[in-house]
Amino acid sequence: MQTTALIMAGGRGERFWPRSRKNLPKQFLSLTDDGKTMIQLTVERLLPIVEACDIYIATNRDYLPLITEQLPDIPKENIICEPVGRNTAPCIALAAAHISKKYEDAIMMVLPSDHLVKYSSMYQATLKDACEVAAKGDNLVTIGIAPDHPETGYGYIRFVNKFTEDTGRAFKVERFVEKPDLEKAKEYVASDDYLWNSGMFLWKISTILQKFERFMPDVYEGVMEIKNAIGTSMQDEVLEKIFPKFPSISIDYGIMEKAENIFTIPGTFGWDDVGSWLALERIKKSNEYGNIVDGNIVTINTSNCIIQGTDKLIATVGLEDLVIVDTEDATLICDKDHTADIKKVLENLKICNRNEYL
Amino acid sequence: MQTTALIMAGGRGERFWPRSRKNLPKQFLSLTDDGKTMIQLTVERLLPIVEACDIYIATNRDYLPLITEQLPDIPKENIICEPVGRNTAPCIALAAAHISKKYEDAIMMVLPSDHLVKYSSMYQATLKDACEVAAKGDNLVTIGIAPDHPETGYGYIRFVNKFTEDTGRAFKVERFVEKPDLEKAKEYVASDDYLWNSGMFLWKISTILQKFERFMPDVYEGVMEIKNAIGTSMQDEVLEKIFPKFPSISIDYGIMEKAENIFTIPGTFGWDDVGSWLALERIKKSNEYGNIVDGNIVTINTSNCIIQGTDKLIATVGLEDLVIVDTEDATLICDKDHTADIKKVLENLKICNRNEYL
Repeated sequence: MQTTALIMAGGRGERFWPRSRKNLPKQFLSLTDDGKTMIQLTVERLLPIVEACDIYIATNRDYLPLITEQLPDIPKENIICEPVGRNTAPCIALAAAHISKKYEDAIMMVLPSDHLVKYSSMYQATLKDACEVAAKGDNLVTIGIAPDHPETGYGYIRFVNKFTEDTGRAFKVERFVEKPDLEKAKEYVASDDYLWNSGMFLWKISTILQKFERFMPDVYEGVMEIKNAIGTSMQDEVLEKIFPKFPSISIDYGIMEKAENIFTIPGTFGWDDVGSWLALERIKKSNEYGNIVDGNIVTINTSNCIIQGTDKLIATVGLEDLVIVDTEDATLICDKDHTADIKKVLENLKICNRNEYL
Repeated sequence: MQTTALIMAGGRGERFWPRSRKNLPKQFLSLTDDGKTMIQLTVERLLPIVEACDIYIATNRDYLPLITEQLPDIPKENIICEPVGRNTAPCIALAAAHISKKYEDAIMMVLPSDHLVKYSSMYQATLKDACEVAAKGDNLVTIGIAPDHPETGYGYIRFVNKFTEDTGRAFKVERFVEKPDLEKAKEYVASDDYLWNSGMFLWKISTILQKFERFMPDVYEGVMEIKNAIGTSMQDEVLEKIFPKFPSISIDYGIMEKAENIFTIPGTFGWDDVGSWLALERIKKSNEYGNIVDGNIVTINTSNCIIQGTDKLIATVGLEDLVIVDTEDATLICDKDHTADIKKVLENLKICNRNEYL
């Protein structure tokens, strides 16, 4: 069966402020040493298993210029622009409708645009395995990640930790669990029955559309109407009319928590959701003082700092465990233990109507 | 007797980097909330006791444009430009020669250009008292400051802590002591026999020239030669030829440690030498979180920081006890306990030939 992929690139991640902005979210930033942006890396690691002409990008239409600039090899007609953000369920339904216009049926991988993978070959092998499972019946497949710490920022998957010849490397999912508190998270990590929900899904177009028809019939009918208009002069008008009416619901909540025949394949490919500036400690090389330094930097008695500058000189003296990020119009200086409070800076800026910094 | 003042403004203080630079030293910066520069404040507090036409400024000629811009009321001919820096002794000798061209004799106050005074009226009263003492015999007068902590960055004056009707508020100086180590400094502060050497001196022109003739005869002869050329077409040429040959020696070492009849008047006018960024804690208002903040700043969970910005946004999260100074081309982030190491940044920049930042 034909394999296609949907890369979801509509996010507006605030945790990489001030480098990330409303008009330049994380997926369009380069955070690794190779200079490639997150979405470029996402496409790159997919190309050995999916052709460029079968890769679809769903995004907010504001980001269309960024996508065509960063991904010149993706056909323009594969870029699906949402008039407004409506979380992942409507986004996936819309993309499924688009893809079903081209292929009667096909495997659809659904992948975030702003995560990193260390071992591409293992990633590709895992997705290939997942495709096989997704091709059978009305299976829904999700890639789970074996947790190595009690993370409270992710959803979890409770799975049946039992090998059967039937499904091979795939395991039956018992249920999806929303972001737990620390105590619960510790329990999950200790129990061996939980994986992190990485937000990567695989299914047939026909399967997921059936699920929408059953669990989110309004969205299903809406996207069918949109599908009929695709390629006609009415396309934009119909999309504009229908899409904003969809509820803002995640695929986890809208479909996965309700459907049956859900399988998970644990991914062991060095997954990283690059959730905050601290992730740079995992993905970039530090120098002999434990500093991760880019730009025009002079450090004196400075250790274990993340310093991301530009051409402007940054001099640090006697610092430890800070994150320093400089951009043209804003500088962030943040204690490593307080990165979760970066959003408070943005709240403050919003309240003060200082939208130029958002 | 006529009263004149020499303001010494040749210093290149590095401790306010990156705001202070080789071409914009501390005396030309505004560090107080009133927006006036250090040298402007120095002149302002002097004007009630010395007329503008009797205030002389000694400086490096590179700073001439800054002085004429910041002090438009000081006559151009009162600005004494040293071709090279040769510490305070040659500077004072040169200025004495200049002033002696205008007045047969006069009181000469010698004052730094980059210190602050909280109580101007007490400052003026103290200098008036000092003038009276300096007018007698061949007295040399220095303004001492009662130490409130064992500072190792200043020289000390050992004086005779004994009141006599003769000299009134002036006390005999026993000796000048160079910057002590911490143990010595503690001893001095505990003993009641020591004052800080503030670097403010008063004497008659005739007295100080006599002292130069006796203790630094080469400098004396040199400035007499320069004096003869002042006002002639040869003025610059003679200055250029002679001045660079002078030894680089401080007035303390060259004259004060050798001369007799030295008196000190303790100044109780809220003196501050504004020796580092930390001085801002004494001279600027802090907000409710103990932060001293200027510029376009958003602080979250930040306390006891000194943040000096510009129009560019600086956002701080979870910080404590840091100094953050932003300028157009350089940003300093320094732990308060490490401000003495700011000079290491400058050493590093010098070694790397990055003179644009010095």
